[in-house]
Amino acid sequence: MTLQDIKDGHSRIQPHIHRTPVLTSRLLNKISGATIFFKCENFQRMGAFKMRGATNAILQLTKEQRNKGVVTHSSGNFAQALSLAAHSLNVPAYIVMPSTAPQVKKDAVKGYGGHIIECPPTLQDREKTALSIQEEKGATFLHPSDDLDVIIGQGTAAIELLEDHPDLEYIFTPVGGGGLIAGTALAAHFFGNNCTVIGGEPFEVDDAYRSLKSGKIETNTSTNTIADGLKTQLGDINFPIIKEHVSEIIRVEEQEIIDAMKLIWERMKIIIEPSCAVPFASLLKDKHRFKNKKIGIILSGGNVDLGNLPF
Amino acid sequence: MTLQDIKDGHSRIQPHIHRTPVLTSRLLNKISGATIFFKCENFQRMGAFKMRGATNAILQLTKEQRNKGVVTHSSGNFAQALSLAAHSLNVPAYIVMPSTAPQVKKDAVKGYGGHIIECPPTLQDREKTALSIQEEKGATFLHPSDDLDVIIGQGTAAIELLEDHPDLEYIFTPVGGGGLIAGTALAAHFFGNNCTVIGGEPFEVDDAYRSLKSGKIETNTSTNTIADGLKTQLGDINFPIIKEHVSEIIRVEEQEIIDAMKLIWERMKIIIEPSCAVPFASLLKDKHRFKNKKIGIILSGGNVDLGNLPF
Repeated sequence: MTLQDIKDGHSRIQPHIHRTPVLTSRLLNKISGATIFFKCENFQRMGAFKMRGATNAILQLTKEQRNKGVVTHSSGNFAQALSLAAHSLNVPAYIVMPSTAPQVKKDAVKGYGGHIIECPPTLQDREKTALSIQEEKGATFLHPSDDLDVIIGQGTAAIELLEDHPDLEYIFTPVGGGGLIAGTALAAHFFGNNCTVIGGEPFEVDDAYRSLKSGKIETNTSTNTIADGLKTQLGDINFPIIKEHVSEIIRVEEQEIIDAMKLIWERMKIIIEPSCAVPFASLLKDKHRFKNKKIGIILSGGNVDLGNLPF
Repeated sequence: MTLQDIKDGHSRIQPHIHRTPVLTSRLLNKISGATIFFKCENFQRMGAFKMRGATNAILQLTKEQRNKGVVTHSSGNFAQALSLAAHSLNVPAYIVMPSTAPQVKKDAVKGYGGHIIECPPTLQDREKTALSIQEEKGATFLHPSDDLDVIIGQGTAAIELLEDHPDLEYIFTPVGGGGLIAGTALAAHFFGNNCTVIGGEPFEVDDAYRSLKSGKIETNTSTNTIADGLKTQLGDINFPIIKEHVSEIIRVEEQEIIDAMKLIWERMKIIIEPSCAVPFASLLKDKHRFKNKKIGIILSGGNVDLGNLPF
């Protein structure tokens, strides 16, 4: 993985994604004591940074591979991102979703042009179903977070943030499957000026925190968090990158996530999803340490169910 | 009222306000058939365009007047705007509010540094109380919408929008007390290139629509609308400007306001208040007429009670 690989990834996807704005808020700076630059991936196409990784991964396929399509298993933002990215590039997308997934998620995938294949709601069935699509259609499997092209794509948000603000001392991201934080860590390593990447994670699903401590990939026995994008565990490809480049993950309580989300909604007048509030909650939790620091926060996404808000 | 007066107003307030961003949305363009440029005054200081007019009006006072302070009666965004603008300029602000105003509104005014004077909830009591503050403190009364300096200040949002997009064919604004639409109409007249200003108004409080028809200021007998910023009537100073420069007001139903608000929340990931959704609802209502037109919409504000949403 070289600086050039990452630069190439950014050039590759630029025509297909938004360069999202970076917003600031006097009031949130006052509350936190830090100077915060929010990279608004909630304004990205499809409402989340996942559009970057999905686009980069598809663009790396051969013409023949593209003709046969792509397949993933996800019921979250990556399912929608792969559907839209594939549709925009004229590639078929097969999305394996548990039969229990909410109708609103299925409708979103269909709306973006993805073909849904339902399966029983177990990891084994999910993988078996995805494998059968690979065999039947010749489609290429793309993992939502444990894929180098996906990781590079996710890191481009931090590249843009560092282009706009080269002197950031920290960048905070949420930690779910590990794609965003791994990509961000690579971007900060190659393009930052001594920029430290810190992860935010709910206590309820603190597998990444425990993985960094133990040195091996840990799992969650329960996933009782409002941050539904952060329930998954790290993977074999992104974990080594995270181990090398991320020194710290700050854990937060559920109420802290909700409070941080509400603060951003009320003060910045923008909509972010619960997972997206986690890094800001982490910063607030340890705010004495970050006083007067220049901090980037990747606002990862804005896809919420307005009929089911936590406040 | 000359072009220079308006330019001067803009220069005067620029150091004290945000130049808010102009956002676009492929999806909302697709849904409407028009090309829409949203001027995001929900991102303005204090969360609404009212900051512009309040600031301009205070800056027009003499030093002696400023020392004695300003007074208004409002329980809405102007109360907060005058409090913050005055506080930023070291001027005392006295806000006459009905004793029945929600605690959250009173807290917001206090938070911005305004001094609240409560009165019984009638128009007569409100005016009597404001008058007594003028006499007692020597404070200058500033009307939320029927004041030329306030009108000029509100029009600066449209000046910026036209600077960014000089070829707009229409600008839509909500119509409440008339300050925003009058200022916008002046800005479009002096700085637009054949740019037509259209007002959006709820059927439930269509006093401005009826005023334009009858040629005199009409009132509302009931104010049963979710658009709580649009319940007030036009005034002697802004009505002549509106009569001269605004040819049309489009009325919308309550459900259309809620649907438009939800569309903007879900698709643009930004928070707007119900009153702010009215012009977009008006555009959607008559969308066949505006197909392929370049349209500016002033998103007037984003101050909502998250605990009391209509969806």
